[in-house]
Amino acid sequence: MSLHPAGSPATPELPSLRVAVLGAGTVGTEVLRLISQQGEELAHRIGGRLEITGVAVRDTERDRGEHVPAHLLTRDAESLVREADLVIEVMGGIEPARTLLLEAMAHGASVVTANKALLAQDGAALYEAADAHGVDLSFEAAVAGAIPLVRPVRESLAGDRIQRVLGIVNGTTNYILDAMTRSGASFEDALASAQELGYAEADPTADVEGHDAAAKASILASLAFHSRVRLTDVHCEGITSVSAQDISAAARMGRTIKLLSIVERIEEETGERISARVYPALIPEEHPLASVSEAYNAVFIEADAAGSLMFYGQGAGGAPTASAVLGDVVSAARTRVHGGVGPRESRYAELESIPLEELRSAFYISLTVEDRPGVLAEIAGTLSGYGISISTIHQELLEESAETGAPVRAHIGISTHRALESAMTASLDVFSSTATVLSIDSVLRIEGE
Amino acid sequence: MSLHPAGSPATPELPSLRVAVLGAGTVGTEVLRLISQQGEELAHRIGGRLEITGVAVRDTERDRGEHVPAHLLTRDAESLVREADLVIEVMGGIEPARTLLLEAMAHGASVVTANKALLAQDGAALYEAADAHGVDLSFEAAVAGAIPLVRPVRESLAGDRIQRVLGIVNGTTNYILDAMTRSGASFEDALASAQELGYAEADPTADVEGHDAAAKASILASLAFHSRVRLTDVHCEGITSVSAQDISAAARMGRTIKLLSIVERIEEETGERISARVYPALIPEEHPLASVSEAYNAVFIEADAAGSLMFYGQGAGGAPTASAVLGDVVSAARTRVHGGVGPRESRYAELESIPLEELRSAFYISLTVEDRPGVLAEIAGTLSGYGISISTIHQELLEESAETGAPVRAHIGISTHRALESAMTASLDVFSSTATVLSIDSVLRIEGE
Repeated sequence: MSLHPAGSPATPELPSLRVAVLGAGTVGTEVLRLISQQGEELAHRIGGRLEITGVAVRDTERDRGEHVPAHLLTRDAESLVREADLVIEVMGGIEPARTLLLEAMAHGASVVTANKALLAQDGAALYEAADAHGVDLSFEAAVAGAIPLVRPVRESLAGDRIQRVLGIVNGTTNYILDAMTRSGASFEDALASAQELGYAEADPTADVEGHDAAAKASILASLAFHSRVRLTDVHCEGITSVSAQDISAAARMGRTIKLLSIVERIEEETGERISARVYPALIPEEHPLASVSEAYNAVFIEADAAGSLMFYGQGAGGAPTASAVLGDVVSAARTRVHGGVGPRESRYAELESIPLEELRSAFYISLTVEDRPGVLAEIAGTLSGYGISISTIHQELLEESAETGAPVRAHIGISTHRALESAMTASLDVFSSTATVLSIDSVLRIEGE
Repeated sequence: MSLHPAGSPATPELPSLRVAVLGAGTVGTEVLRLISQQGEELAHRIGGRLEITGVAVRDTERDRGEHVPAHLLTRDAESLVREADLVIEVMGGIEPARTLLLEAMAHGASVVTANKALLAQDGAALYEAADAHGVDLSFEAAVAGAIPLVRPVRESLAGDRIQRVLGIVNGTTNYILDAMTRSGASFEDALASAQELGYAEADPTADVEGHDAAAKASILASLAFHSRVRLTDVHCEGITSVSAQDISAAARMGRTIKLLSIVERIEEETGERISARVYPALIPEEHPLASVSEAYNAVFIEADAAGSLMFYGQGAGGAPTASAVLGDVVSAARTRVHGGVGPRESRYAELESIPLEELRSAFYISLTVEDRPGVLAEIAGTLSGYGISISTIHQELLEESAETGAPVRAHIGISTHRALESAMTASLDVFSSTATVLSIDSVLRIEGE
């Protein structure tokens, strides 16, 4: 829409939208910078002006730089959201963000949020409030930072059927695993250096235990399968037990280890169920996700008609996240100016989640065993007894007895064909009580083959 | 939006939308199949039903399979579009598609098209008609098939500033270049085998001469820079002169050759201009676009705040293109049901295109020369005289005189630092009239570094 003739001055007659910003951290500051620097361009794209009515912060005294003018700072977030057309929530955390957003929507404001924890935990309440009050709720920045992902899944693929999403959606863990792969470092050392460089937080729990990736998986699964997928429906394993040995064993097999968020539609004779899960997995080095390095994010989508799609970019950081927030702001603002409603979360499918134990995966397990005749046969027999078929075995001598020279311990790495999780769990239970199995060192799944 | 309680039957009270389909080729048939197979799901997502009122074809007698019922076929496209809420144009070509779409919009229908040639040639008229009549004009399928690209550029990055887009947007040429790279085949042989396998058409001109990629570049540049970029503004070179020698020379330098569609914002002291161009270029093997194989497409976007993003997937084919068309159909249909308007083409920036000769690029040139003392110095002197600085030189003996054993011809491959196109043109003019330069074998640009 050519809003005014080329070369004409700014158009003062454009309507104004009252925009409240909650939070002025890294992302909030970048959002305010972009709005102030690109005000004219945004006005053209929206057909209206964004007027920042206030920025809610806890500390109104701190100097936050030129793009966050002191006169806009307020501690009274409640009043701010009640008078807004559009609320940008970049404060994070569950409360008071949740109450403020519900309050904003109840007063007719559209909401743009980057808050994945809140969406994963209380998304349903937020979606319902948006429906009830006829306002937009947008959250592109909540899933993979700057990578346009929510919009493609919600809109571009709205006429297709998504079968599976495999994503690297946590930059910190990808940075750590990538560093371990490049340098052979242990998890602890790679984490320490990621913390030094600012890629991991002082308390890295939410990242390394997979909680952040699980929140994103729950959001993605809800969108992809038009069903409510709660955070508690997402099976979650982190990367803290991934060892340098696992990384080198994977490399020996032409694979690399990535923390994957997987959401999947599973067709069964009785209908369909879905699975959402997060765990470190071995993927082939040729897989497009294998070459995603450092703190980058990437998401691989398989849809019936579209085939395989991949989206790649920066999943975190102030400016990239602000870019995603502003894309949503422009859309929501256009809807305010021109009418209509943005995309809604449809929940019509109401697919159930499949419990992990009913899933079938290929596995890599590594065991330390007494190196005696018959041990390998015993292990293979146990697996086979549970219907698990072995794909490859790698055996390695670990130490020799000083007196006899006879080997006493060996390391066995086994990769399997696809097998039921419950069968693997049962096999591992048997190994735990098998005298010749000295330890179960790792159990990892193999994906993307 | 939960349109009805979970588990309830189909909701007959949903409004119906009259949908006209123009064309029943590969894409049209797939669109009809998806609409018929996913009717209920689409109705939920839209909040309304898609009712196909007719399918305009030239031959109404031909059997087109179960998803294109004979009673819907008509030759009267004009009447069909006048009675439609939504027109899906997958017939291709300029006319009658152009007239039909203008007619459809004049009668209040929203339009979804996959017609890149029409958009590149007459986009402005179509965009204006959509504005004038307050209807949606969507064309996700026109740029890179199934890859969501138009929507991310139009909407997700609407709050950001795109600096550059580097795209592999033509599958045929990527397939040919990839085959040449893998097998060492000549262009002619690779083309012939691509034709045999159905990756290239009997008349491959539009693909191999870069016309298809140029049409997409003009659409992308218009969207990315909010300016009108005509097909004639796009500099276009195809891949017909890329030789097996070029491919192997590129490999020796750790680079690979790809046909790139490049659209770029160029900041100058006097303001900004843009460039849109298509040519085969050498890119580093580590660049994300270098590993895009076979007929896949990928688009690399650099934006101020978002940083680098990449989108990857199938750029052509019936089902992938139909997926993109249907994503647009769902959005446009939702707008019909719920009100509002879809994104509009803003042209406010009206940036001018920079002529190619004023651009600065790094080059790879290869020459056949008489191998005599002083030849290399002469060539280097010419380049340096035009301000072009050499990055690397590779010299290779081509033949020896049978009598003396002295070399008489050599091949010289030179890569340069960034230099003005006009300076390179002038240097090549000098080489053409330099007696010791027997032939100029290739001139390729280097990108992505």
